[in-house]
Amino acid sequence: MQLVSRLVLAAVAAVVASAALAQPDPLPSWNDGPTKQAIVSFVEKVTDEGGEDYVPPQDRVATFDNDGNLWAEKPVYFQLLFAIDRVKALAPEHPEWKDKQPFKAAIEGDMKTLAASGLKGIAQLVMASHAGMSPAEFQKIVGDWLATAQHPRFKRRYTDLVYQPMLELLAYLRDNGFTTYIVSGGGIEFVRNFSEDKYGIPPAQVVGSSIKTQYEVIDSVPTVMRLPEMNFVDDKEGKPVGITQHIGQRPIFASGNSDGDYQMLDWTTSGEGPRFGLILHHTDAEREYAYDRDSSVGRLDKALDAAQDKGWVVIDMKNDWKEVFPPVE
Amino acid sequence: MQLVSRLVLAAVAAVVASAALAQPDPLPSWNDGPTKQAIVSFVEKVTDEGGEDYVPPQDRVATFDNDGNLWAEKPVYFQLLFAIDRVKALAPEHPEWKDKQPFKAAIEGDMKTLAASGLKGIAQLVMASHAGMSPAEFQKIVGDWLATAQHPRFKRRYTDLVYQPMLELLAYLRDNGFTTYIVSGGGIEFVRNFSEDKYGIPPAQVVGSSIKTQYEVIDSVPTVMRLPEMNFVDDKEGKPVGITQHIGQRPIFASGNSDGDYQMLDWTTSGEGPRFGLILHHTDAEREYAYDRDSSVGRLDKALDAAQDKGWVVIDMKNDWKEVFPPVE
Repeated sequence: MQLVSRLVLAAVAAVVASAALAQPDPLPSWNDGPTKQAIVSFVEKVTDEGGEDYVPPQDRVATFDNDGNLWAEKPVYFQLLFAIDRVKALAPEHPEWKDKQPFKAAIEGDMKTLAASGLKGIAQLVMASHAGMSPAEFQKIVGDWLATAQHPRFKRRYTDLVYQPMLELLAYLRDNGFTTYIVSGGGIEFVRNFSEDKYGIPPAQVVGSSIKTQYEVIDSVPTVMRLPEMNFVDDKEGKPVGITQHIGQRPIFASGNSDGDYQMLDWTTSGEGPRFGLILHHTDAEREYAYDRDSSVGRLDKALDAAQDKGWVVIDMKNDWKEVFPPVE
Repeated sequence: MQLVSRLVLAAVAAVVASAALAQPDPLPSWNDGPTKQAIVSFVEKVTDEGGEDYVPPQDRVATFDNDGNLWAEKPVYFQLLFAIDRVKALAPEHPEWKDKQPFKAAIEGDMKTLAASGLKGIAQLVMASHAGMSPAEFQKIVGDWLATAQHPRFKRRYTDLVYQPMLELLAYLRDNGFTTYIVSGGGIEFVRNFSEDKYGIPPAQVVGSSIKTQYEVIDSVPTVMRLPEMNFVDDKEGKPVGITQHIGQRPIFASGNSDGDYQMLDWTTSGEGPRFGLILHHTDAEREYAYDRDSSVGRLDKALDAAQDKGWVVIDMKNDWKEVFPPVE
């Protein structure tokens, strides 16, 4: 009988140990510390059915900025590099671009002039290079570019420059009943190209800037055609508007990295009940980039000041992240 | 031994019988016949992993019109009745409406003049009565109205006038890995009020017409404000555009009941691979209404002719449906 008791105890111990092993750290690329702890505490709190901060799954809406938040955005937004490559590819059909800015600068790779052309110049490039085709045809062009283009510093594909800790955070939230959305200033169809594959976020859960589309029947074939005309700018004040239109609910968790995310975070965290605002601060010049208040791309100034007042959690990339990018395959 | 064999056989028979019982008809309110058979065949075909018509779950997108398709739309769109009641309620604050059409007609319940004011008149009513508040405040107003207003003929709440067979179809598709969306000419926030509760469709899976919204910080409180200005008309050519913007995928299954759904069905069913177009034909004057080519609300003319050519399945409400509305509780 004593032997049997011992065997039973050993079996129980083995089961307990395997249960512990079956729950590995859901955020292994995050260093232990207050940032990680704040995230985990929030998730535990809103999923605790008996607790006073419980939020039912249908209200667990989490929104993430993309550029500089889920993947890198330096030296400039990757979509701008795509637009420049598209303009170069289309240049033979547009001889007039040779002498017309900002197309001239794009063709010549003159980033200084391009930067000086501002948002208006970039919008011109995007509209000229992203329109005149169906969304499916556009997806093909984006996919081909992403499959081959290389980041100038890291010599990796752009879709390899997603942040490993953020992939873990997205999965952790979904495993806890959250629905995760991208809310990007970038183009909605551009981001949709890789959102499911890289982030596990399906096309319908991407909110972004867009150009207009129009329904046309061409040679009896029903077609949606992309037009060279802005439809919606999903940045700053546009983010709460885009979320309202697209999701129809105020998030309880919002994550961003720049002043373009200020309004999304402010609106999210000023709602009733438990709320979480997360700011990624790029502090790691060695593994990625270090920039904030003076950067033209991804400027983080007003939102960094606000984080303190409003209780937003600031990720210090250098100290909070064990890894930045996924390992090279 | 013989006894044991018999017992085993009896047990096996019991298990088989209970398995059959465990799979009841998923569409009990549909009469057996070619319409029901076509729906079931399509679903079985696209979910058959070994078959040549298999469609992976992430591509099983199904879109449903709302008015006259998921719930009734006679004598006029229920949202118009809501707008009229709103205008009446707001009239004391707007003495100028007494002498101004279409407000005068709304206040006096003069449906003939209202109908003559056309879409432009209706849009004026909607913009005046649906704006000047946050989406959450609007939800409250809609919810209060739906909880009390009664349909003039059926003396039931409007949300009781959803179609029982369509509720079963939505659930059947979801049980088979489809994602179901509403794509309505009606207001997106209006439909979102009851879409989850009545149809099992969450707010983010509602596509509809919309007025503009704007982000404002009022007394330090971040707010999204509804503006009296049209943003998007999700009808006819607008439906494929709204689907592209919102869902980012072409559906494989589309369901509608009027010429306003023609483009959605044409675009859906002209894609590659297995596709399904479904038209609800209102043929049941006794249990609901009978109308098609000459109706001002929900006119079904061009799409009824096209159904034959394009292989869309037409539901004959009178003959295909055992029940129309859910039982009175």
